[in-house]
Amino acid sequence: MLEVEPFSVVLVADLAGVVVFAASGASAAVARRFDMFGVAVIGVVTALGGGATRDVLIGAVPPLLLSDWRYPLAAVLAAVFVFYFHPAFSRLFRAVLVLDAAGLALFTALGTQKGLAYGLSPWAACVVGVLSGVGGGMIRDLLTQEIPVILREDFYAVAALAGAVLAVVATPLDSSHGQWVSALGGGCVVFAVRLLAIKFRWSAPKPRI
Amino acid sequence: MLEVEPFSVVLVADLAGVVVFAASGASAAVARRFDMFGVAVIGVVTALGGGATRDVLIGAVPPLLLSDWRYPLAAVLAAVFVFYFHPAFSRLFRAVLVLDAAGLALFTALGTQKGLAYGLSPWAACVVGVLSGVGGGMIRDLLTQEIPVILREDFYAVAALAGAVLAVVATPLDSSHGQWVSALGGGCVVFAVRLLAIKFRWSAPKPRI
Amino acid sequence: MLEVEPFSVVLVADLAGVVVFAASGASAAVARRFDMFGVAVIGVVTALGGGATRDVLIGAVPPLLLSDWRYPLAAVLAAVFVFYFHPAFSRLFRAVLVLDAAGLALFTALGTQKGLAYGLSPWAACVVGVLSGVGGGMIRDLLTQEIPVILREDFYAVAALAGAVLAVVATPLDSSHGQWVSALGGGCVVFAVRLLAIKFRWSAPKPRI
Repeated sequence: MLEVEPFSVVLVADLAGVVVFAASGASAAVARRFDMFGVAVIGVVTALGGGATRDVLIGAVPPLLLSDWRYPLAAVLAAVFVFYFHPAFSRLFRAVLVLDAAGLALFTALGTQKGLAYGLSPWAACVVGVLSGVGGGMIRDLLTQEIPVILREDFYAVAALAGAVLAVVATPLDSSHGQWVSALGGGCVVFAVRLLAIKFRWSAPKPRI
Repeated sequence: MLEVEPFSVVLVADLAGVVVFAASGASAAVARRFDMFGVAVIGVVTALGGGATRDVLIGAVPPLLLSDWRYPLAAVLAAVFVFYFHPAFSRLFRAVLVLDAAGLALFTALGTQKGLAYGLSPWAACVVGVLSGVGGGMIRDLLTQEIPVILREDFYAVAALAGAVLAVVATPLDSSHGQWVSALGGGCVVFAVRLLAIKFRWSAPKPRI
Repeated sequence: MLEVEPFSVVLVADLAGVVVFAASGASAAVARRFDMFGVAVIGVVTALGGGATRDVLIGAVPPLLLSDWRYPLAAVLAAVFVFYFHPAFSRLFRAVLVLDAAGLALFTALGTQKGLAYGLSPWAACVVGVLSGVGGGMIRDLLTQEIPVILREDFYAVAALAGAVLAVVATPLDSSHGQWVSALGGGCVVFAVRLLAIKFRWSAPKPRI
């Protein structure tokens, strides 16, 4: 029987998140008419900023993203791809939203698990997971001078928080072979809440005037 | 005789600072017409951002603010309170300024002491104290795209620096029962300088044209 | 024969970079008409922000910049100098560009070496070196609400990256007496690429519409 090494799966999921977020950052940079290097910088920062913030907060320095060259390479390649093929991307506006939701789901679930693995309390692991998911997009928006997505989109941070909580709650169900239940459960919740919020235009209460 | 445990007092002062800064951040977010989640996010980041920056710089990871659920809970409650009762707040503009000065005083004094407790030199403890005091407000202003308060308000960083220096200088006067003299002295200096600067519209020199 | 202690040379080069970046940050703050304290804050953050980010990422906490009072003192003095004598500076716009390139070169080369000294892989040392070079300017631009220089200037991050790569490649050539070859080689490449890019208005490809 083929044994799937848990670490490899985490790596693949992590890299998928990196590619997705790098593409979303690069799209924003292309829309701002930055040059190729600017597009690459924004792509890398969007893809790796959230994880680096998480690693600094939990004391995992130097961050994995720095010490493993596959992460920045994947981000640069995705950003350059978007730079050259962005007209196709802009026609796929809806696809970008879905990809961003997928990246949010992947990073939130994996970030929450990493927090637990570093001995954080359940609550702190949730916070760290949410930061992993939303951090890169926040830095992207700061650099391109947009109101950060977590403030613009009503159910962005909330989707991440719901998934992080579920990932923590489901952790006792994880087998000795890996953290499938909590990762899949948490990720799916983030993804579903985000897509439903986009589809049905869920909105949070606004302050009364 | 009732023994007051120093740690509890620090905790209460810290939480008071969290509530005050969360309320000031939430007020800014309400003024920007963010939705409820955005108001909560800005409140939490304003209240906890300065302390998290301090903890990362002195190597106290994971930050206390992450590992102790009472901090974020206090921040969220304060932000939600402001979200629902902000009309009362906007009539109390002057009160918000006073509360912000109180938060600045609390965080600067406690941050300076924490820096000393982690073995920093007196100078580094001052820097870390000022960062604890002004960091949250800076992040709030970056997220809401305002010129940061430490650049707008002439005597903001300077008030914090004056209090941090006094807290360091007064440390030898602290008794074995706690750090009352330096904390109270430093905090009062920050508070007094800030209020006097607001009251008498102190202004720093501007560059000649 | 007079022995030159390597550490002193690094210190002098580091302080030169601090002064140069503090002056460039202060110039931007004066152009925004901030008051004296705001000019000092921007100067300090521009000069010390990149190195602090590097130190946090590699786990060198508290950052040298915090624990050594000469760094912030040099930054404050440079910023105050610019505050009082900025008319001379604004006539020297081209000189400021050259100084900024020199600061970028110094910080990138020294940051890359520090990364290697902390046991990072060659790749991670490059990333950390680039961050050391460009980090302060990014924070300056965020605080003064400009599009960050690494996104505006086509050959800014790329110049830093080229120098960081050369510094890593040249490391085996360093003698036991110091890291002259890699530091000088890397720094000169950054400086040369930056100046040539300014002189000949090199520009990177823009996205097709």
